[in-house]
Amino acid sequence: MRVYDVIAKKRDGAELSQEEIQFLLNGYAAGDIPDYQMSAFTMAVFFQGMTARETAHFTQVMLQSGDQIDLSDIPGVKVDKHSTGGVGDKTTLVVAPLVAAAGIPVAKMSGRGLGHTGGTLDKLAAIPGLQVDLAPEQFLRQVREVGLAVVGQTGNLVPADKKLYALRDVTATVNSLPLIASSIMSKKLASGADKIILDVKVGSGAFMKTAEEAFALAKAMVDIGSSMKRETTALVSDMDQPLGKTVGNALEVVEAVETLKGHGPEDLRQLCLELGARMLAAAGKAADEHRGKEILTELLRNGSGLKKLREMVTTQGGNAEALENYNLLPRAQVIIPLYSKTNGYISHLHAEKVGLAAMAAGAGRSRKEDEIDLAAGIVLKAKRGDKVAVGEQLAEIHAADERRAAQATDMLAEAFTYGQPEKHPLILGFVTDTGEYRNAP
Amino acid sequence: MRVYDVIAKKRDGAELSQEEIQFLLNGYAAGDIPDYQMSAFTMAVFFQGMTARETAHFTQVMLQSGDQIDLSDIPGVKVDKHSTGGVGDKTTLVVAPLVAAAGIPVAKMSGRGLGHTGGTLDKLAAIPGLQVDLAPEQFLRQVREVGLAVVGQTGNLVPADKKLYALRDVTATVNSLPLIASSIMSKKLASGADKIILDVKVGSGAFMKTAEEAFALAKAMVDIGSSMKRETTALVSDMDQPLGKTVGNALEVVEAVETLKGHGPEDLRQLCLELGARMLAAAGKAADEHRGKEILTELLRNGSGLKKLREMVTTQGGNAEALENYNLLPRAQVIIPLYSKTNGYISHLHAEKVGLAAMAAGAGRSRKEDEIDLAAGIVLKAKRGDKVAVGEQLAEIHAADERRAAQATDMLAEAFTYGQPEKHPLILGFVTDTGEYRNAP
Repeated sequence: MRVYDVIAKKRDGAELSQEEIQFLLNGYAAGDIPDYQMSAFTMAVFFQGMTARETAHFTQVMLQSGDQIDLSDIPGVKVDKHSTGGVGDKTTLVVAPLVAAAGIPVAKMSGRGLGHTGGTLDKLAAIPGLQVDLAPEQFLRQVREVGLAVVGQTGNLVPADKKLYALRDVTATVNSLPLIASSIMSKKLASGADKIILDVKVGSGAFMKTAEEAFALAKAMVDIGSSMKRETTALVSDMDQPLGKTVGNALEVVEAVETLKGHGPEDLRQLCLELGARMLAAAGKAADEHRGKEILTELLRNGSGLKKLREMVTTQGGNAEALENYNLLPRAQVIIPLYSKTNGYISHLHAEKVGLAAMAAGAGRSRKEDEIDLAAGIVLKAKRGDKVAVGEQLAEIHAADERRAAQATDMLAEAFTYGQPEKHPLILGFVTDTGEYRNAP
Repeated sequence: MRVYDVIAKKRDGAELSQEEIQFLLNGYAAGDIPDYQMSAFTMAVFFQGMTARETAHFTQVMLQSGDQIDLSDIPGVKVDKHSTGGVGDKTTLVVAPLVAAAGIPVAKMSGRGLGHTGGTLDKLAAIPGLQVDLAPEQFLRQVREVGLAVVGQTGNLVPADKKLYALRDVTATVNSLPLIASSIMSKKLASGADKIILDVKVGSGAFMKTAEEAFALAKAMVDIGSSMKRETTALVSDMDQPLGKTVGNALEVVEAVETLKGHGPEDLRQLCLELGARMLAAAGKAADEHRGKEILTELLRNGSGLKKLREMVTTQGGNAEALENYNLLPRAQVIIPLYSKTNGYISHLHAEKVGLAAMAAGAGRSRKEDEIDLAAGIVLKAKRGDKVAVGEQLAEIHAADERRAAQATDMLAEAFTYGQPEKHPLILGFVTDTGEYRNAP
C-alpha cells in the first residue's frame, strides 16, 4: 500500500477501507508517514468528507494509538459528559458534582482552553491549592472513594490525535466535521466511560455556526459511539450568546458555586439539569429525563451537589473555604463598568466578541504557552432580550490593569446590538442512535 | 502575514493577492515555510483552482526564484517549443533542426522522462558520444555558431518549481491545471525565448484526457505568456494513440531521422510541419503558417534539416555516422513480434498502454534513479483505422531479454481494440492570445 494512493483516493471522493485508514494513521503516529503527506490528506478530507464508516474506523485507529482508561473496577455505569466548548461554559463544574451526588461515579478528564477563554482545568486552577495532575491510580482511587474527580489527562491517551490536531491547527484543516468528531470521540472513548452525553454548541461563540452543522456533528459523534457500542446522546444547545453571566476563570467558579447553591442564572441552571438528567437516565439512576431533573433539583435544593464539590476540592488538595469566601479566589485589580449608550432591547449579544473581549482582559490564551490571568474576565449585567436605558450598566470588566480593561471594554461594547430581540431556544434539540429530535425554534 | 491565513483563504475559494503569493512561494523556496503547510495549500488549489491573475503571479514568483537565461546576445527572434508529453513524441528531434535550418536560432533545454518513455534527453543519449550537459557559455556559443543546441537544464532555473514539484509528486497534487501551467511556463520563460509554441497533448497517453481539459490548460499557459509579454501559441494535438510508429529511445531517433530524410510516418511529419510553421511565423521568417509549411517542406526535401541535426550532433561530441548507419545505435538483443488474433479494423490503440508496455520492455523509468534501456521499445506495424487479419503483425517488441519482451508483449496486446475505428483529428485546434480555434472533430 502507498500513502500516495490513499491520498489520491480520498482526493477523488472514494471511501477508504479500514486497512487504508489503519495504514495511514498508524504510519503517521509511528513517524513513518511525514507531515506533508498527512496535511495533504486532511485538506482532501476537508473537501471530500468521510462516510460514517470511514469516520468510525478513523476513530477506532486513533483510540488504539495509545492508552485507554479502564474504569471496570469502579462499580456502576460510568457516564461521561463533554461540551464542544463555548463562551462562559462552566457546566462541568455544576453537573459533575451534581450527578456524583446522585450516585453516578464521575471520572472526568478535562482540557486546558485555547482561544476565547479557559477550559475546565483553567477554571479549577482558580481554586487555591487544587491539583489537577493526578497519577492514574490516584485518579481511580478518588473516583472510587469520593465518587468524583475532575483532572487533566492522565496516561498517554490518543497520541495520534495529539499529533494530528497539532498539524491540522497549522494547516487550516481543523474545520472538518468528521475530523472534529473523531478527535473528540477518540478521547472520550479512551477515557473509559460506558456512556457519553455530549453538549454540541451552536452559534457565534461556538465552532459550529449553524444548527445544520451542529446537528450533523452531533449525528457523526453519536454514530461513532454506536459503532463502538458506547451509547452516546448529544444535546445541541445555544452558544449565540454566552452561557450564564460570567466569562473568565475565577468569575465562572463563583457562578458555578452559586448555581450549586440555587442562585445561578436560569440558562446555566436549565442546561445543567438537562445534561445531568440525561446522565442519570443513561446510568439507570432515573427512569427518564423528567424524573432525572426532579432528582437533581432536590440535590441542588438540599446542597448535596455543593457538598460533593467541596469534597472533591478538599481531596484534590484545594481550599474548599474559597467556595464560601470568594475573597480567597483570585481577584482583579481593576473593575470597570460598561454603560449602555442606547435605550432599547438588546437584540443580540455576540458570544465570540464577548469571548475575545474576555481574552483581551487576560482570561484566555492565544498560544499554548500563554499565561492566563485567572482573575480576569467579564460579568454581564444584561443579556439578549433585556431592555436597557442609556447609562444603565451592561457589564463589568475585570482586568489586571487599566490598559487591558480599556481595551476589553471597547471590544465588549461591539458585542451588544439593539433592536427586536432574536429568539434562540436554549436547547435546540438532541440526537440519539434512534434519531434526531429538534425543538420548535 | 501568516501562512495559515493564506492557506485558509485559498481553501475558502478566495483570490490571493500578489503579495500573498510572493510571501508563500518565496517563504517556501527559502525553507521558512514547511512542506506540510505547502502541501495543504496545493491540495486546496487542487480543489479551488486559481484565477488567471493568481496563476500569472504564481508563475512570475516561481520564475524569479532562480536564474534566467539571457539570449539577447543571439541575433534574431528566439522561439522555443514545448510539448506536454506523450507516447512516441519525438517532435523536438525533427522540428528543432528543421527550424534551425530555416534560420531561427534554437536554444532548447529539455528534460529526462519519468513514466512511460524517455524524454528528449534520453532519446539523444542513444546517439553515441553525444553530450547534453553543457556549461551556459558553451550552450550559448553553440547556438550562435551552429544555430541549434538541445541540452539538459543549464544554470539554476526555477528552483522553487523543482522543490514544489517534488512535493506535489508525493502528495497527489500534481494534477492541478494552474499548477501544471505555472510549472511548465515558469521553466519556458526562464529559458529565455522571445516567443513560445506549445504542443498540448490530449488523450489516453497524455496528462489531459479530454479536449476540454487540454484547451483549458492551453489557455492557462497562453494567458501566462501574455501576462509576461512573451507571445505564446498552443496547439492541441491527439495523443490517444502514440505519435508515429516507434516508442523507445533509439527507435525514436531512427524514426526522427527518417522523417528528416522524407520517409517518416505521416502523423509525425504533419505535426512537425504544423509546429515548425508556427515557429517560423512567430519569428517573422514566414508570412503565415501556410508559407511556413512550404519553406519547411523544401528543407525536408533538400536535406537541410538532417544536415543541421548532423552539425549539432557533431558539435556536441556525438557520432553523426549513427544517423546514417543505424547499427551504431543501441540495438536490442531480443525482438519479438506481436500478431493479431482477430480479423478487422483497429478501432482504438491505447497510447498509455503502449507506453506502459514500452516501459516494461525497459524503455522508461518509474523512479528518477532507474536506468533506461536505450535500445528497448516498440515498433508499431498497425495503428488506429488499419485493417488487419489474423496472424498479421501488429508490432515488434524490442527488449534486453525474453522475460521483459514477453511481459511487454502481453501488455501491448491489451492496447489494441477492434471495431468501428474512432475518428480523432491529429490537430484538435489551437489557442492564441486572441482566442481559441477548434477543428471540426
